[in-house]
Amino acid sequence: MLLHLSTWPEVETYLQRSQGMIIPIGSTEQHGPTGLIGTDAICAEAIAQGVGASTQAMVGPTIPVGMALHHTAFPGSISLRPSTLMLVVRDTLTCLVRTGFTRFFFINGHGGNIATLRAAFSETYAHVSDLNLPQGELVRCQLGNWFTGSAVMKLARDLYGDQEGSHATPSEVAVTQYLYPEARKQAALSPDVSPDHSIYGAMDFRRRYPDGRMGSNPNLATPEHGQQFYEASVKELSQSYLKFMNEL
Amino acid sequence: MLLHLSTWPEVETYLQRSQGMIIPIGSTEQHGPTGLIGTDAICAEAIAQGVGASTQAMVGPTIPVGMALHHTAFPGSISLRPSTLMLVVRDTLTCLVRTGFTRFFFINGHGGNIATLRAAFSETYAHVSDLNLPQGELVRCQLGNWFTGSAVMKLARDLYGDQEGSHATPSEVAVTQYLYPEARKQAALSPDVSPDHSIYGAMDFRRRYPDGRMGSNPNLATPEHGQQFYEASVKELSQSYLKFMNEL
Amino acid sequence: MLLHLSTWPEVETYLQRSQGMIIPIGSTEQHGPTGLIGTDAICAEAIAQGVGASTQAMVGPTIPVGMALHHTAFPGSISLRPSTLMLVVRDTLTCLVRTGFTRFFFINGHGGNIATLRAAFSETYAHVSDLNLPQGELVRCQLGNWFTGSAVMKLARDLYGDQEGSHATPSEVAVTQYLYPEARKQAALSPDVSPDHSIYGAMDFRRRYPDGRMGSNPNLATPEHGQQFYEASVKELSQSYLKFMNEL
Amino acid sequence: MLLHLSTWPEVETYLQRSQGMIIPIGSTEQHGPTGLIGTDAICAEAIAQGVGASTQAMVGPTIPVGMALHHTAFPGSISLRPSTLMLVVRDTLTCLVRTGFTRFFFINGHGGNIATLRAAFSETYAHVSDLNLPQGELVRCQLGNWFTGSAVMKLARDLYGDQEGSHATPSEVAVTQYLYPEARKQAALSPDVSPDHSIYGAMDFRRRYPDGRMGSNPNLATPEHGQQFYEASVKELSQSYLKFMNEL
Amino acid sequence: MLLHLSTWPEVETYLQRSQGMIIPIGSTEQHGPTGLIGTDAICAEAIAQGVGASTQAMVGPTIPVGMALHHTAFPGSISLRPSTLMLVVRDTLTCLVRTGFTRFFFINGHGGNIATLRAAFSETYAHVSDLNLPQGELVRCQLGNWFTGSAVMKLARDLYGDQEGSHATPSEVAVTQYLYPEARKQAALSPDVSPDHSIYGAMDFRRRYPDGRMGSNPNLATPEHGQQFYEASVKELSQSYLKFMNEL
Amino acid sequence: MLLHLSTWPEVETYLQRSQGMIIPIGSTEQHGPTGLIGTDAICAEAIAQGVGASTQAMVGPTIPVGMALHHTAFPGSISLRPSTLMLVVRDTLTCLVRTGFTRFFFINGHGGNIATLRAAFSETYAHVSDLNLPQGELVRCQLGNWFTGSAVMKLARDLYGDQEGSHATPSEVAVTQYLYPEARKQAALSPDVSPDHSIYGAMDFRRRYPDGRMGSNPNLATPEHGQQFYEASVKELSQSYLKFMNEL
Repeated sequence: MLLHLSTWPEVETYLQRSQGMIIPIGSTEQHGPTGLIGTDAICAEAIAQGVGASTQAMVGPTIPVGMALHHTAFPGSISLRPSTLMLVVRDTLTCLVRTGFTRFFFINGHGGNIATLRAAFSETYAHVSDLNLPQGELVRCQLGNWFTGSAVMKLARDLYGDQEGSHATPSEVAVTQYLYPEARKQAALSPDVSPDHSIYGAMDFRRRYPDGRMGSNPNLATPEHGQQFYEASVKELSQSYLKFMNEL
Repeated sequence: MLLHLSTWPEVETYLQRSQGMIIPIGSTEQHGPTGLIGTDAICAEAIAQGVGASTQAMVGPTIPVGMALHHTAFPGSISLRPSTLMLVVRDTLTCLVRTGFTRFFFINGHGGNIATLRAAFSETYAHVSDLNLPQGELVRCQLGNWFTGSAVMKLARDLYGDQEGSHATPSEVAVTQYLYPEARKQAALSPDVSPDHSIYGAMDFRRRYPDGRMGSNPNLATPEHGQQFYEASVKELSQSYLKFMNEL
Repeated sequence: MLLHLSTWPEVETYLQRSQGMIIPIGSTEQHGPTGLIGTDAICAEAIAQGVGASTQAMVGPTIPVGMALHHTAFPGSISLRPSTLMLVVRDTLTCLVRTGFTRFFFINGHGGNIATLRAAFSETYAHVSDLNLPQGELVRCQLGNWFTGSAVMKLARDLYGDQEGSHATPSEVAVTQYLYPEARKQAALSPDVSPDHSIYGAMDFRRRYPDGRMGSNPNLATPEHGQQFYEASVKELSQSYLKFMNEL
Repeated sequence: MLLHLSTWPEVETYLQRSQGMIIPIGSTEQHGPTGLIGTDAICAEAIAQGVGASTQAMVGPTIPVGMALHHTAFPGSISLRPSTLMLVVRDTLTCLVRTGFTRFFFINGHGGNIATLRAAFSETYAHVSDLNLPQGELVRCQLGNWFTGSAVMKLARDLYGDQEGSHATPSEVAVTQYLYPEARKQAALSPDVSPDHSIYGAMDFRRRYPDGRMGSNPNLATPEHGQQFYEASVKELSQSYLKFMNEL
Repeated sequence: MLLHLSTWPEVETYLQRSQGMIIPIGSTEQHGPTGLIGTDAICAEAIAQGVGASTQAMVGPTIPVGMALHHTAFPGSISLRPSTLMLVVRDTLTCLVRTGFTRFFFINGHGGNIATLRAAFSETYAHVSDLNLPQGELVRCQLGNWFTGSAVMKLARDLYGDQEGSHATPSEVAVTQYLYPEARKQAALSPDVSPDHSIYGAMDFRRRYPDGRMGSNPNLATPEHGQQFYEASVKELSQSYLKFMNEL
Repeated sequence: MLLHLSTWPEVETYLQRSQGMIIPIGSTEQHGPTGLIGTDAICAEAIAQGVGASTQAMVGPTIPVGMALHHTAFPGSISLRPSTLMLVVRDTLTCLVRTGFTRFFFINGHGGNIATLRAAFSETYAHVSDLNLPQGELVRCQLGNWFTGSAVMKLARDLYGDQEGSHATPSEVAVTQYLYPEARKQAALSPDVSPDHSIYGAMDFRRRYPDGRMGSNPNLATPEHGQQFYEASVKELSQSYLKFMNEL
């Protein structure tokens, strides 16, 4: 079920059988010369909807802009401050808790979101506790990164070896090619595999990674690979979601 | 052009001919017994993409959750605090200003967002000024509500008379029926036209408007009406966008 | 009754018959070459006291500095950030709610305050709800702009036609002349009616409106006009206040 | 000069001869059975205007609501959180610094404001420094409490001995009687001199000081005393202001 | 008892006999050419542990960085913003209140902390009240500055006369020499007693006090003096703590 | 070098040869029936001083209270909100950057700090960039958890196998026994190895882990082990620090 295509009485009915919600979170940031700026949101949303379909779970609105400050020296990249993203998560979950949701499974498309999301979960537990809501103690959040599941990572190794890299990876580019074949971009990449180093501030990032890639060769991506990644991730995260919901 | 389907070099190229961006903003809130929770985001996004297509403007990521605190006593409604939404707007625009965008045209699907957005614009002008950015003085924001254009309002009056109401209106429901015909919902509404009063807090709202509608009869909506509203709004807001971009 | 000239036992007695409070809010900002910097606070405070006298309502302290960021490139203009003003309103109302007030009628002298006030009302409803106060659900805020009442606007049209403009208007200048005849200022204005455009940031505002006026000819103002505006507004807003208090 | 009765060109002219501004700050809080809720703002504003008149200094808008959280269990008391008041001071001074003011002399009517004001000064110096304003390093704030000047304190001792107390004092009540003779209140006070202890939270305060006074006998106040206090304070604070302005 | 060397069951046992906690707070800031940057934290921590030992009170973690913005133009000085320090105090106390502590005695080593701490106490009382904790009304904070006790001040006058000054004083330097004799520093000071003026922003401070001292001659300090100060302060503050705990 | 035992001229001299600073960060939280509440701060501080000694690096003040919200249902546990800790880190680093430090190596003793610290680093890079400081682009932060170094983890596995667990571990308890042998605590633990599950809010945590341990058997700890852990960690983190400082 998709929250945005549901009515409130349908949500009320859903809450009688489940208090779980899947929340996709992406980012709006450069993904190298050929990767789409919306890559992380596109992947997270599609996989979340796949997981929702396979588990009968409600899927909430995608958070399209995440924590990508280090990418913001490239045109078109947008980031929330960590402190802002924490408030977005807190406000979102607090509303949902008030009407009965208690377990939130974030399907995440961007490594840069992880730390801030974990901090936001802690902040939210404390905030909900402050409000003295009856169901406050039941609130639980879990993070599922589609790109770190074991099957997904094995597939990336098998297909791309050490050219997977860590940003603008062929795996994520492949998923967007599968989902938006009409938006497949072409460009010569030089060097084929860009070097991979540390991440600090935005200006430093652009200096280190002039075309935006980190150790990746996205030209290896194909839409067929994308379908494989999509299916592997939906399967893995569906299992994770069900395990999370069944946890005592 | 859609930002999320573009690469950063494509954005760099776009910036050479335009510094404008369209940003759709919706809400995730109850829309009565038959309206979709995502109505406002769905309408804003589709119309924004239509405006982008007709004006060659870049369309940024949709803000799917807005200021809907008064709806949050209904299951599935989500709202940011005004203070949070202001930070989201500030962070978003500041990133875009840093890489060259200066004119932001918000296409809005929800009346409850208007005040907070206007406050956010003021806050953003001051924030950008604080940062001493060279292009800071050039930053301008404008708000285009798809539902308040004169042609759209005339169409609503012609089709629905005094049954348009002010929330869960047949006009917005019609647009979602046009865009998502498979998600069209049915329910008997009683009374046909719910009464229309003031808006205060969330509990008060639910007490006043037990099924979530405000003075509207959404059962009058049809997908064909939706297409008419969509087209009228795209036309009106395209003119508004071009006027905004051409303003000295 | 004026809160600042009352004792706490008098307030306790008042609360037994009414839970309403009128709160004047102005601004401290340039009003063109001849308008007083305190114009908006002066008008709001005087009219609020008039409304209080005619309706037996308690009048709280004037908020003298509002949201006037766009005027701050002129010497002497002061503004709170929207986010700060929202906190001021939230703190103020929360204190009053704790001791029994529940209905707040803001009499406003400045268009630039409107959006932030509306956002602040939403924020306050949610904040009071978070505190689990017994009377939290009863809290209601309403905004009464003295300059947008129908009788006031008709009077302005009758007296000034298209020279009323939208900032440093003859109507507001007239009210200050009526209240502070000793502070009436004289200056040649060129052009008589300055052009009227958009509002963005502070530097842009000063560039567009070099002497601070927006489309107005304040030299048309007289103290006698001011009295007429004052009386018309007190009458209109007294009716609004009573209607607000009587609303179920 | 009063800022609120000046025009911006008059402020511009003033800035050529002085960069100083006097800012009155009061509180809106219970002052015992006979003291006015506005006592602190009334005293601060009147004395500030007296100082302004005697030193040719610009007097800015009064901050009518201060830090009075400990009084908020009494009806009609209003307080900003310290964190909010700090933002109000920061925003106010930042605007004034941008157009040329650099020395701010706060004339304060309420002991509860002192700590927050001092913290706000530190926060403001750092904030102005962050903005890289050319005049940022010149910004200086000073606090003048009208009730702690040596002549004022001697007068209080002479007139009231150990019945001056520390809240709802005869000295401050006397000043309001001098300024607003029509608002003089009468009530039997029991005991004549209430006990004087510590200050913690609001509920604790009301339990300790059931009628709101702290060690004071405000029934000793007379309008004639009020005039003496007013004149002594204007004289002392005028000297302080001039010394502050002349400091290298 | 030292909290950091205790287990949680030991704390649980302690709470059965006392709900008091001593919290040392210092600063990390320049102390002239020979004073240690950690002077204020070192003194506060050692004296707090002495007071804890003599009164059987629990001593919590030292807050090592305080409000020292005015010192931050000197290398190695660190300061929290007042607004940040207030949050640190609020968070710290809220946690302790939730598990049973209600009386907090801050032993402070730095004058610059005083205003912010007092503001933080007010903010904390209100915050704890907002949380509706059962013990919320019992929360009390008190501030004990080791350097303002009457015996300590008399000792400073006796030993140093008018060369005690107000920053990088021989008394505080002496305490650090007593505690860390191996870290005793030597430097010629010129002039012996630096002038003593006002405090505004950081750049202004460094210009006024080029070597960081304010009116002090720390070369008069000896470890033996330090022991005397330490013992006098422990004695005075132990009495203050017990009085605070016994207050009704 | 220890910052708190240095003078500002010594820091100035240090900055001529290095712009690096080590910052220890711990936590003040329950560590099971026998672990010290200060365990994480004690370990981080001692190891940081060891690393400082071996690398000639400056060691700043320990942050004694971290992000431990999930432990706060146990008496004596203290936590900052993630949002507060981020401000503490931001303020601390901003001060140090202003006087010349640019590389910050955090030696961390608590897993719960990791996410918030990473978020704080991002926030700090952006904040420093906002300030337009000349050295802003050079700022880099790195996180070194003493307990996740490969040699330390191997040692834990060799000594404790699957009884190391993840909270109140024998390894961290051992380090505190080595450093504070006088504070070694004894208690029967039942079961020897407590179960290890998820972490959500504070009340949920205490329900899951009634004595505070997570999968650990701290009774295996000895002071001799502690010395081994200490030495292994100092060696590993010294290498990490030097690598960090030498990174281009």
